[in-house]
Amino acid sequence: MDVQNEAVYILSAKQRLGETKHCWIIGFEKLFHAIATLLGAVLGAKTLTQDRCDLSDAFTRLSELVAPEMEAVNQAIRQRMQSEHAPRIPELSAHLIEAGGKRLRPILTLAAANMFGYQGDHQIRLAAAVEFIHTATLLHDDVVDESAKRRGRPTANILWDNQSSVLVGDYLFSRSFQLMVETGSLRVLDILANASAVIAEGEVLQLSSQNDLSGGEDRYFQVIRGKTAELFSAAAEVGGVIAGATDAEVKALRAYGDALGIAFQLVDDVLDYGGASAAMGKDVGDDFREGKATLPVLIAYAKADEAGRVFWERVIEDHEQEDADLEEALSLIDAADGLEETKARARQYGQDAKDALAVLPQTPVTHALGDVVDFVISRAY
Amino acid sequence: MDVQNEAVYILSAKQRLGETKHCWIIGFEKLFHAIATLLGAVLGAKTLTQDRCDLSDAFTRLSELVAPEMEAVNQAIRQRMQSEHAPRIPELSAHLIEAGGKRLRPILTLAAANMFGYQGDHQIRLAAAVEFIHTATLLHDDVVDESAKRRGRPTANILWDNQSSVLVGDYLFSRSFQLMVETGSLRVLDILANASAVIAEGEVLQLSSQNDLSGGEDRYFQVIRGKTAELFSAAAEVGGVIAGATDAEVKALRAYGDALGIAFQLVDDVLDYGGASAAMGKDVGDDFREGKATLPVLIAYAKADEAGRVFWERVIEDHEQEDADLEEALSLIDAADGLEETKARARQYGQDAKDALAVLPQTPVTHALGDVVDFVISRAY
Repeated sequence: MDVQNEAVYILSAKQRLGETKHCWIIGFEKLFHAIATLLGAVLGAKTLTQDRCDLSDAFTRLSELVAPEMEAVNQAIRQRMQSEHAPRIPELSAHLIEAGGKRLRPILTLAAANMFGYQGDHQIRLAAAVEFIHTATLLHDDVVDESAKRRGRPTANILWDNQSSVLVGDYLFSRSFQLMVETGSLRVLDILANASAVIAEGEVLQLSSQNDLSGGEDRYFQVIRGKTAELFSAAAEVGGVIAGATDAEVKALRAYGDALGIAFQLVDDVLDYGGASAAMGKDVGDDFREGKATLPVLIAYAKADEAGRVFWERVIEDHEQEDADLEEALSLIDAADGLEETKARARQYGQDAKDALAVLPQTPVTHALGDVVDFVISRAY
Repeated sequence: MDVQNEAVYILSAKQRLGETKHCWIIGFEKLFHAIATLLGAVLGAKTLTQDRCDLSDAFTRLSELVAPEMEAVNQAIRQRMQSEHAPRIPELSAHLIEAGGKRLRPILTLAAANMFGYQGDHQIRLAAAVEFIHTATLLHDDVVDESAKRRGRPTANILWDNQSSVLVGDYLFSRSFQLMVETGSLRVLDILANASAVIAEGEVLQLSSQNDLSGGEDRYFQVIRGKTAELFSAAAEVGGVIAGATDAEVKALRAYGDALGIAFQLVDDVLDYGGASAAMGKDVGDDFREGKATLPVLIAYAKADEAGRVFWERVIEDHEQEDADLEEALSLIDAADGLEETKARARQYGQDAKDALAVLPQTPVTHALGDVVDFVISRAY
């Protein structure tokens, strides 16, 4: 959408939305801002996106647009994580599910159904199923990575034990399939069963190639497609499917989720070497200490001289690290523009995500999804 | 079916089966035996079952009756446990899947479809799905129990690591849902998604009440229904559903699987305190050393005097054990008739299983399922 059309859209959206709160269309300042930006366009500015309102609001705005559905999702989650016979299941599930995660994945499902004006309630079940798959994956991940902290709090495997995390994960995973069955859509079951297999495959690949620099970028993207992008794309896809989207629209939703997921993971891997890590409840250097060959490392390794290659092979492949190594790693990554290049790749995927939205109905939710891309990228800066 | 009808059935089955090998219908001795048993019936013998042929043959016979389908199941299993990107998945899966397990659960699915003369091939997918759910459960179980040996061989968590066992289990679980989706039957998906949740719930309940004598028999049966009987019943049920069985028949298949599964687990718990354990690749006293409150223990605890209660609470609840304690436990169980009573309960469930078969089509497979009950019970003797 070019700038002029977008400005027209803002005005028409304003009329359609009436009382709904959107920081970019209500209030005198905002109207003034839109006009000012339109003037800016005449002077050569290319998009309104960055200026519409604070990027940090983009996610909040999307959440507000699907708030009633999300309330129903939270209710479904609370109800379905119960267990008649094993009280440990809701105790442990609640620890993770109510830890204040952003519910980004189920929001994608709700947003996708919302943009087609879907009037049923199956998207609620699907969004809850997506969150259960995500939660089960986190529970198993924390066992696999022997993590002690997530989102700044002790993990379930520390508070209870590995065994409970494994089994409660299995329970939530089964519950997610029960929710899908209730929608009566085999296509949805196909998409999410497939996604679950791809996620597990990505996790195994990550585990078996964790300290291996030889796979290069190809393997890196294979791993993050599995462990992150697949659930983003499936979440968006099933929202469209249940709402009766056309094949082209479903494909666009999938492409959006895929590109957003990859951008999200690239930013996450940048944050592990600095930036706004503290705010995310993450410690700088976690990936490094685990010997993960993330993209910033792979970029630095590819550009390294002989001494650099010896360094990376020792700290990543042999996983032999000393106190000063993180500093040396940061310096080598910096010299190779590893973080800048990773951010550039994230921006590129972000653009792919926004481009994918073009064939979808242009609703407030669709625009908010575009802004969420910028928000995800902005975390790296 | 009364004895006279059964004898008639044997003769007509013989004609129908032609060259198929069945120890109870071919060969001069067997014909003689059938006639002799018919004479026995006149003299008041109630069933042919125990006499038909050696009990140890019962399972082999059932396997032979569904051998072509099982070959297709094995092929589907080998194909679906592959992974394009993560070679560790088939390596680890093969270790467990090709370890010579009896495939009892998928055989139930094939047998159930077979007795209705089902002509499609969806039972192959469902049997493979059932075996994948079972394998995933075993992989996660061995992590939870920190087991080092299964069926006399080192476990995957020892040969690889806990992480791989968790993630490959997740992969196989996802693959099982893909197989179910391919049958196009939401009812089948409902049954197996439900079974998966009940299994995980049973495992969590077992874990959280492992060293607890206070739950008594109720909790014990709750646990074994989840961890063992549920997959037996779901396996039999989906075979009938896909073959178009009536509601009453589906219910009977479920009841058969449930009772057989409970009998199977009761016998397993007897074997842990003696009997034919060595032959099963199990060590005597494994459950005891893990402090599991199985039925023989619960029976002994319920009948114990003050000293006995102190003993059981120390070794099971406080999980403080010394070298001589297993011997003392065996002696207390013996004094309380703990193994005999457990076997009697197993026989009772075995009878329930056989009774359930009465409303089903009386085919060679149905008869073999009856004999398999006796075979399962006979393991305890």
